[in-house]
Amino acid sequence: MRDFLPDDVRRRQYVIGVIADVYQRYGFEPLETPAVENIETLMGKYGEEGDRLIFRILKRGEQANSGAADLALRYDLTVPLARVVAEYRAQLPKFFKRYQVQPVWRADRPQKGRFREFYQCDVDAMGSSSLVVEAELLAAAADVLEGLGFIAFAIRLNHRQVLSGLLEASGIPASQHGEALVALDKLDKVGRDGVAAELVAKGLVDGSDAAALVQLFGTDERRTNGEVLGQLRGDMKGHEAGLRAVDDLEQIVRLTAANRAGAHIRIDPSLARGLSYYTGSIFEIAVPDLAGSLGGGGRYDELVGMFLGSQVPACGISLGLERILVVMGERAMFPPALVTASADVMVTIWSANTAADALQLAGELRAEGLRVDVYPEPDKIGKQFKYADSRGIRFVTILGDDEAARGAVAVKNLSTGEQHVVPRADVATLIRKNG
Amino acid sequence: MRDFLPDDVRRRQYVIGVIADVYQRYGFEPLETPAVENIETLMGKYGEEGDRLIFRILKRGEQANSGAADLALRYDLTVPLARVVAEYRAQLPKFFKRYQVQPVWRADRPQKGRFREFYQCDVDAMGSSSLVVEAELLAAAADVLEGLGFIAFAIRLNHRQVLSGLLEASGIPASQHGEALVALDKLDKVGRDGVAAELVAKGLVDGSDAAALVQLFGTDERRTNGEVLGQLRGDMKGHEAGLRAVDDLEQIVRLTAANRAGAHIRIDPSLARGLSYYTGSIFEIAVPDLAGSLGGGGRYDELVGMFLGSQVPACGISLGLERILVVMGERAMFPPALVTASADVMVTIWSANTAADALQLAGELRAEGLRVDVYPEPDKIGKQFKYADSRGIRFVTILGDDEAARGAVAVKNLSTGEQHVVPRADVATLIRKNG
Repeated sequence: MRDFLPDDVRRRQYVIGVIADVYQRYGFEPLETPAVENIETLMGKYGEEGDRLIFRILKRGEQANSGAADLALRYDLTVPLARVVAEYRAQLPKFFKRYQVQPVWRADRPQKGRFREFYQCDVDAMGSSSLVVEAELLAAAADVLEGLGFIAFAIRLNHRQVLSGLLEASGIPASQHGEALVALDKLDKVGRDGVAAELVAKGLVDGSDAAALVQLFGTDERRTNGEVLGQLRGDMKGHEAGLRAVDDLEQIVRLTAANRAGAHIRIDPSLARGLSYYTGSIFEIAVPDLAGSLGGGGRYDELVGMFLGSQVPACGISLGLERILVVMGERAMFPPALVTASADVMVTIWSANTAADALQLAGELRAEGLRVDVYPEPDKIGKQFKYADSRGIRFVTILGDDEAARGAVAVKNLSTGEQHVVPRADVATLIRKNG
Repeated sequence: MRDFLPDDVRRRQYVIGVIADVYQRYGFEPLETPAVENIETLMGKYGEEGDRLIFRILKRGEQANSGAADLALRYDLTVPLARVVAEYRAQLPKFFKRYQVQPVWRADRPQKGRFREFYQCDVDAMGSSSLVVEAELLAAAADVLEGLGFIAFAIRLNHRQVLSGLLEASGIPASQHGEALVALDKLDKVGRDGVAAELVAKGLVDGSDAAALVQLFGTDERRTNGEVLGQLRGDMKGHEAGLRAVDDLEQIVRLTAANRAGAHIRIDPSLARGLSYYTGSIFEIAVPDLAGSLGGGGRYDELVGMFLGSQVPACGISLGLERILVVMGERAMFPPALVTASADVMVTIWSANTAADALQLAGELRAEGLRVDVYPEPDKIGKQFKYADSRGIRFVTILGDDEAARGAVAVKNLSTGEQHVVPRADVATLIRKNG
């Protein structure tokens, strides 16, 4: 887990600000949930591996030494959302659209670019199974990334029923789909032959059929979305749910054609997404030359039902703040003005006797909207200048006995060395004009 | 622990925004630390009661079932700051001034207005023992409260060495000061006679001296700060450290005379502050008719030394976000514009065939800076209007086949009932003009 020093925090706040601003323009509202959930709320939602990675909190009071845990740290923002939708159903609008930017915790072994505390930026629309929801979510995510300065990125799009349709059409029973998808998910890493070998080794398919099966999920960037959809339709061999899913994908492509997402969408039958709660469309955002993704999501129409009893259709996208920050840092994508000095001007303290007057001057400059630091001690004036310079603060004020007597202030520009004595009321204007 | 629905989050973000803005104008920089600290970092810093209230996190991996805890949830923002200052000493400026707004967790029994997860807004200045630091911190806190609309509030000011000076001058040995202060801290609640009785019962003072001792710490709002300081000087009976502390208080009053804090400061010898790490000035912010405080703080010159070995002087103020929100809510202090509709306009969907065009219109209006919601389904248009109205959204657009054919859009103002058909390019202007 990491500390974020001031420059880090400014970069994080900048990215979060762009994200919140875009999501608000799409009509999403902010939600915040507690860091700590009841342990039962989380267990069993993320698969076996997920359960192991949940940080558990010891019981307190009389049971403090029992070693038992009743609470746990938030593992993602989706399960808490499902709980909130179930719990506050009556207060929330029918189509509850929320964004949420908060940390989550996973007891992963720390490794490069992975942290045990990290922020997720989630946007979800509850209550509708219309594909307009997918189109809007993808447009919003694309808008965020373009707003941050990303130009070349792909939104990989697939559908859970396309995956199961293709597997069933190939004669693999539903009970083995999970295992098959785990193997197919490695297409990027181990290539077609590697995946085929794993499928055979697991006994999921005969050696002679393996290559053909893998071929169904293969991608080729030269093919258009229309071509991929046409191919999928043929590969479904009349499988009804699979064909409906292909129709869904086609409609998402049509609905996004004229929006921000359109140019980025690439139908990719190999996309599987790990989490077990997805039921329909799934997506993942990839940037060239970056292993892994900047975000992903999909439709999960049955998760709220685990808390509420009745189903509430839902779809969402989660952006990974930490990866976005890493890529933006490596590619120097932050606005140059962002990492700024902590103040526009530093007020120096001439002597213990004039300290109160210096503080009053600081207050006057702040009232004019300037960010004003005050050197806390009546050190030698040269030492005070040096400190301001080391902090990147461009101006210092000097309010000695002479200046005070005349109602004036000396203002020194540390980057040019120029110094002017001006009436006290003009200090803010001088600094703003040259700042 | 609580969920914050959209209106709650907007109010919280408003207050945090005012706080961050003021602190930045005073030259403070943002810091963020992880929610989870090593358990040794926290234990022993908050007293026995504090240790009991720390949420402890179970070990993971092989030791998962040992019942042992190695991590804990952040209990305040001061101890993590001290750890950061010790850990990053070389990277931080000599006078590190940071603000931090993050949640902390305490395993308190939940009660009215107290939560197990709550936000603190801390501002601290490290590296100087000059009283300029106190003056600036108090001005910043006063500026925040005035910025939020608080007018009548008192900054109670005292000094740890004033407390110990008065007790020693009264013949109570240092070893019993802790116990005596616990009793004196109840002056507000149980009155002078109650405190005197407790001091006698504890054997700290003879019955005949008890009233005189309590008298030393008594406050009287009609007395000026100068009068209280004069009185304290006499009561010290030449106790040197106590007299130096009175000088410190006098200087803080002088330094703040012309700043934002000046009008609010009230020297209050009865203020004790619970936490054991304070070493000098202490303060607490009180609002009339509110039990408890909106914030407090003080100087703690020895805390960083617990992590670093060498001492780093430090002083800070913590504002309690939750109490500020409660009071602002009760007194209707939020700007009326704050709890706003989730969107300026809702784009309706006329039919499945026109959905893509409606989404394109939504994109055009967002590019003009409007916040745009989209009804996700081609429901009956009246039902869509009703939904927008229930969400407080003032305008809806209708893009039927007729309008689309003419390059026009119908815009309905739900609060007046007026409907205009305008060229598509003029929709944003119409909404902005009447919004």
